[in-house]
Amino acid sequence: MNKEQILNAFHFRHACKEFDPEKKISREDFDYILETGRLSPSSFGFEPWKFVVVQQPLLREKLLPVTWGAQKQIPTSSYFVIILARTKKDLVADADHIRNIMENIQQLPEEVVKRKGEIYHRFLETDFKILDNERVMFEWACRQTYIALGNMMTAAALIGIDSCPIEGFDKDQAESILRDEGLLEGDRFGISCMVAFGYRVKEPRDKTRQRIEQVVEWVQ
Amino acid sequence: MNKEQILNAFHFRHACKEFDPEKKISREDFDYILETGRLSPSSFGFEPWKFVVVQQPLLREKLLPVTWGAQKQIPTSSYFVIILARTKKDLVADADHIRNIMENIQQLPEEVVKRKGEIYHRFLETDFKILDNERVMFEWACRQTYIALGNMMTAAALIGIDSCPIEGFDKDQAESILRDEGLLEGDRFGISCMVAFGYRVKEPRDKTRQRIEQVVEWVQ
Repeated sequence: MNKEQILNAFHFRHACKEFDPEKKISREDFDYILETGRLSPSSFGFEPWKFVVVQQPLLREKLLPVTWGAQKQIPTSSYFVIILARTKKDLVADADHIRNIMENIQQLPEEVVKRKGEIYHRFLETDFKILDNERVMFEWACRQTYIALGNMMTAAALIGIDSCPIEGFDKDQAESILRDEGLLEGDRFGISCMVAFGYRVKEPRDKTRQRIEQVVEWVQ
Repeated sequence: MNKEQILNAFHFRHACKEFDPEKKISREDFDYILETGRLSPSSFGFEPWKFVVVQQPLLREKLLPVTWGAQKQIPTSSYFVIILARTKKDLVADADHIRNIMENIQQLPEEVVKRKGEIYHRFLETDFKILDNERVMFEWACRQTYIALGNMMTAAALIGIDSCPIEGFDKDQAESILRDEGLLEGDRFGISCMVAFGYRVKEPRDKTRQRIEQVVEWVQ
């Protein structure tokens, strides 16, 4: 593929606040976007995420009062996704989720499961030192979800679809709404972020970024 | 662009453990990869990141003993990048970095700077409740860097370049090495992750992922 075309897609992408309510993304295109989320990499391959696609008008309405960053995106987006990240109880080395991924998804032999589990535990405890704080563990899972978030927005932009990543919500209140809907599966998940997809109604302002020399440092 | 071609790139990408030492990525291709990192979105547009490109053999050697997850990638990669994330002192609403981005990069009028700063402070304190813990603040900045991480790996894969994201390092020890080199700028930065780029020497195992129905939940 052509580098210039790809960079054009990175310039095309912006945090689109309002979408054209008349122009809907096809299900085929949206399935492609979700597939790039599914195929995204994650630490140890543990995929600590879930993508909740909120199409039900009633649930969108309930979310509106606690989601100040998505006042126009919730009503106008073709697809509105809440990205969940797993909480500590699903992330510790002996959690069912971790064992399930290693045994049934990665289909590792039993001795590799054991060794990888030990390395993983040491990673959490010693290398990253995140095991003793539930929120830090959750945030580390959230990191992984942002790979999928970035990929889905880029995949959308590559085929001319707009998106908006959203952190502008009250986490506790939004989670309370999802909890009532049974979507957090006994607090095995929390809300990492939200992302809306659609087609823009107006052109964005110019993109602003630090210059390349301000963000890249070469050690040669 | 063609969805199938793009999905092929997502299948092509894998955590490449060893690169062909004879086959180097051109500087032009690598600049394109960095540019997709630079253009990546971040919360409030605060770009809480820096990309340190470690080409110096001596620094690569120093990192090797504290980076168990990059034993083959450090010696063989064309470009080895350490992604830094800003720490709390650079992330609070009245930090120089935050003001600099709003005033000089985003060039917002003074009243907008004030309002956005207030919204941002409330977001940290009330919406996400991350202000009272330094590590959680850092992890939140790390989230943002994973958007750039994902984009750089995807951008690489789209033009046939391999990569490997790396969390397998002792954070304290690796930071101590960078601190000695003056790269953390007075602990304004910490290490979020590392990522190596090059060309594969062998084909990977089949990709394993949960099925789409396992990671996507529709609320209709």
